[in-house]
Amino acid sequence: MLGNCLENVRRKTPLVHSITNYVTVNDVANALLACGGSPIMSDEPEDVADITSICGGLNINIGTLNQRSIDGMFIAGAKANELGHIVLLDPVGAGASKLRTDTAIKLMNTVKFDVIRGNVSEIKTLALGCGTTKGVDADAADTVTEDNLEDMIAFAKSFSQKTKAVIVITGAIDLVADSEKCYVIRNGRPEMSKITGTGCQLSGIATAYAAANPDDKTKAVAAAVCVMGLAGEIGYANLLPGEGNSTLRNRIIDAICNMDAEALNKGAKYEVR
Amino acid sequence: MLGNCLENVRRKTPLVHSITNYVTVNDVANALLACGGSPIMSDEPEDVADITSICGGLNINIGTLNQRSIDGMFIAGAKANELGHIVLLDPVGAGASKLRTDTAIKLMNTVKFDVIRGNVSEIKTLALGCGTTKGVDADAADTVTEDNLEDMIAFAKSFSQKTKAVIVITGAIDLVADSEKCYVIRNGRPEMSKITGTGCQLSGIATAYAAANPDDKTKAVAAAVCVMGLAGEIGYANLLPGEGNSTLRNRIIDAICNMDAEALNKGAKYEVR
Amino acid sequence: MLGNCLENVRRKTPLVHSITNYVTVNDVANALLACGGSPIMSDEPEDVADITSICGGLNINIGTLNQRSIDGMFIAGAKANELGHIVLLDPVGAGASKLRTDTAIKLMNTVKFDVIRGNVSEIKTLALGCGTTKGVDADAADTVTEDNLEDMIAFAKSFSQKTKAVIVITGAIDLVADSEKCYVIRNGRPEMSKITGTGCQLSGIATAYAAANPDDKTKAVAAAVCVMGLAGEIGYANLLPGEGNSTLRNRIIDAICNMDAEALNKGAKYEVR
Repeated sequence: MLGNCLENVRRKTPLVHSITNYVTVNDVANALLACGGSPIMSDEPEDVADITSICGGLNINIGTLNQRSIDGMFIAGAKANELGHIVLLDPVGAGASKLRTDTAIKLMNTVKFDVIRGNVSEIKTLALGCGTTKGVDADAADTVTEDNLEDMIAFAKSFSQKTKAVIVITGAIDLVADSEKCYVIRNGRPEMSKITGTGCQLSGIATAYAAANPDDKTKAVAAAVCVMGLAGEIGYANLLPGEGNSTLRNRIIDAICNMDAEALNKGAKYEVR
Repeated sequence: MLGNCLENVRRKTPLVHSITNYVTVNDVANALLACGGSPIMSDEPEDVADITSICGGLNINIGTLNQRSIDGMFIAGAKANELGHIVLLDPVGAGASKLRTDTAIKLMNTVKFDVIRGNVSEIKTLALGCGTTKGVDADAADTVTEDNLEDMIAFAKSFSQKTKAVIVITGAIDLVADSEKCYVIRNGRPEMSKITGTGCQLSGIATAYAAANPDDKTKAVAAAVCVMGLAGEIGYANLLPGEGNSTLRNRIIDAICNMDAEALNKGAKYEVR
Repeated sequence: MLGNCLENVRRKTPLVHSITNYVTVNDVANALLACGGSPIMSDEPEDVADITSICGGLNINIGTLNQRSIDGMFIAGAKANELGHIVLLDPVGAGASKLRTDTAIKLMNTVKFDVIRGNVSEIKTLALGCGTTKGVDADAADTVTEDNLEDMIAFAKSFSQKTKAVIVITGAIDLVADSEKCYVIRNGRPEMSKITGTGCQLSGIATAYAAANPDDKTKAVAAAVCVMGLAGEIGYANLLPGEGNSTLRNRIIDAICNMDAEALNKGAKYEVR
C-alpha cells in the first residue's frame, strides 16, 4: 500500500529546493505545499549551495534554462550529492534544442540523480544521447501503449540500471522503474495535458516523496505519480459546467491538498511488473 | 464569420514560442492551451533559435525584459523571419522607460512583425518613436472612444501601412487594422483591467490564431480579440457572489477553453470599417 | 479606524514597482490590483530607474534574487529615495543563505526603507546581522506568542528606532511597530501558510497602502496587514467541500478585491500598544 509514503511526507514536511522554470514555478510551490512538503526556489550560483544544504531534496527542471541557472544546477547538484540528498532531474524539452539536450546529458554525467522524470520523448533523448521532440509534449508517435508496454518496461528498467536512478516515464500510462521492478500506473485524465505544468508539479512532489521515504524510493515515487494522477481524476470529477483548464489546475492542487492515505490506497491503480 | 479561424487553431494546434515576462507567463501558457494551441517558453540566446524553429509562431513580449532576454528576442526574431513564421510584438510598457521604448523600436526596425499588439499609449509610442506611459496601462487621456474613433482607425491603418504588420490597439474599444480595413470590436468587460495579463494572454492567442490562419491574418487576429473579449464577458457572467479578480482570471481562461465556433460567431461584436 | 486607509488606496491607485521573486509575482500583481493599486515589475538594472520614477512606491523582495536583480534593487532603491517614494524591504530567506543575508543587510545600510516586512526569523536575522532560517518559513522555535509578546513588541519598537522603518513581523500574531507604538494584529488563518506567497502579496499591498497614506505609514501598513488577514478569514470561510490551498489562494485575492472600508473596520482585530 502506498498510503504510508503519503503519511511520511505529511509527517516529515521535507523541504525541497527547486531550480525550475518560471512558467509553472508557482504551481510547483503550491503543489509541494499541498502534498505536505515545503518549497524553496533559488537559481543564482552564489545562492544555491547554501539553499540546497538546508533542504532534503533537490528538484532540477531545465525548462526556461539560462546560462546562469545552468551553473546553478551543477553547483546545487554537486552540493546535494555531497550531502546525500535526494536529487531529481526533469529534462523539460530535451530533444527540442541542442542546449537542452546537452545540458540534460551533461547533468546526468556529472550529478548522481535518484530520480529522472520526463515524457517518453525526453527520456528516449537522454537514453539515446540525442532526439527530436515537438516542444515540451511527447511525440504522438512515441507513447507508451498497451501494445508496446513490454518493450517500454524493459527500456525503463534497462535505463534505470544504466543510470542508477528511478526512471519515471509519464503519459497516458505511467511507468516508474528501477532495474528490477516497474510500477505500471493507470491513474490520470487526458484533460491534464491541457494544463501547463502538471509534469513539473509531479517532479516537485516526487522529490518530496523520495526525500521522505528514502528506504524505498521507487515505491515512494510511484506513490507520488499515483497522487498526481488520482488528483487529476478527482479534480476533473469536481469540475462544474462551464469550467475548463484553469479551474481544473486549481482543483487538482486542491485534491492533492485534501488527499489522505486511505484515499490514495483506494484510488491508486497500478500493478508491479 | 470568425468561427472557422477558431476551428483552424483547434485542428492545427499551433506551437507558439513565447519570450514573455515572468509576471503573466503561466496564464499565457494556459490561455494558449485553452484556445487550442501549444506553448513553449525560452529566452536564453543559445536556446531560442532551436526552440523557435520547431514552432509555428513567435510571441515577443517585452515586459520584465533584461539584457539576456533582449538578445534572445533578436535571435529568435531573425530565425522566425528566416523560416517565415508568424511573429508578434507586444511592447509592454513602451513609453514607460527608455530601455523598453528603445528595445521595441529597435525590434520593429530589425524584425519583420506580422502583428503588433498593445494599448493605445504603447502603440502611439512606437508610431512616434517616443512617449510617456503611466506604467503598463494606457493613459486615461489617451484612449479609443466613439468621439475619436475615425481618427484612431485612420491612425491604425496608416501605422499598419508603414509597418506592414496587423496593428492591434486594445482598450474599451479594440481595433485590428491592416492598411485597408479595420475591425472595430466591442467585446470585453471593464473588470478585465483588474486582472494582470489579459493583454499578454491575448498576444499569445493572437499568435496562435495568425499561425493557424495564414491566409487572412487580419481576420484571424480579429477573431482572437473577439475570443478574449467574449471570454471576459462569459467569465464575468459566471462570477458568483464574493468572487473577484482572481477567480475572474480563471473563469476567463475556462471560457476560452470551452469556446466553439458557434459561440464565437454568435457572441463576437464587431464591424469592419 | 483603518477603513480610510483603504479608501485612500482605492482613490489614488498607487503605482507600485516590485522587484520580486518569480515564484509568487503573478499573485503579487493580482493582489495589488485587488486592493486598488496598480503593479509594474522590472528588475533589469538599465530599466529600473525609469520604471520606479513613474511609481509611488517600490517593493523590494529578495526571493529568487540573482546578481542582475540585486544590482537592480540598489539602483531602484537609490532612485526611489532620491524621489522620496515609499520603499519596502521583504527579506525573503534572510538567514537561509549568506547571499540573502548579506544582500538584505547591505540593502538596509544603503537604501532608506520606510517599511521592512518579514517573518520573525528573517527580521531577527536583520537585527542580529546573521541568522539561521529553515527555508522561507519562520523557525517554529522562533515565533511571536502570547507568552513572549511583551518582549517581541519591545524588540520591534527598538528595531524600528534603529532603522527608522516601520517594522512588520508576520505570523500567527502580527506586529506592526514604529519606535513609539505597536499594532498587535490577530487576523488571519493558519491555512494561509499552506499557500505560497501570502507574505509576498502583503508586501506589495503594504507598499501601496503606505504610498497612498504617507501621513501615517504605521497605521497604513497595519491596515494592509489587517486586510490580508481578514481576506484570509473570508477566503477560508468561503471554501466549499473538496477545495484546498489553490482555491483558497484565489478566494483570498477575491476577498481583497471585494473588501470595503466598512468590512475592514468591522473585521480588523487589533490593539495598539
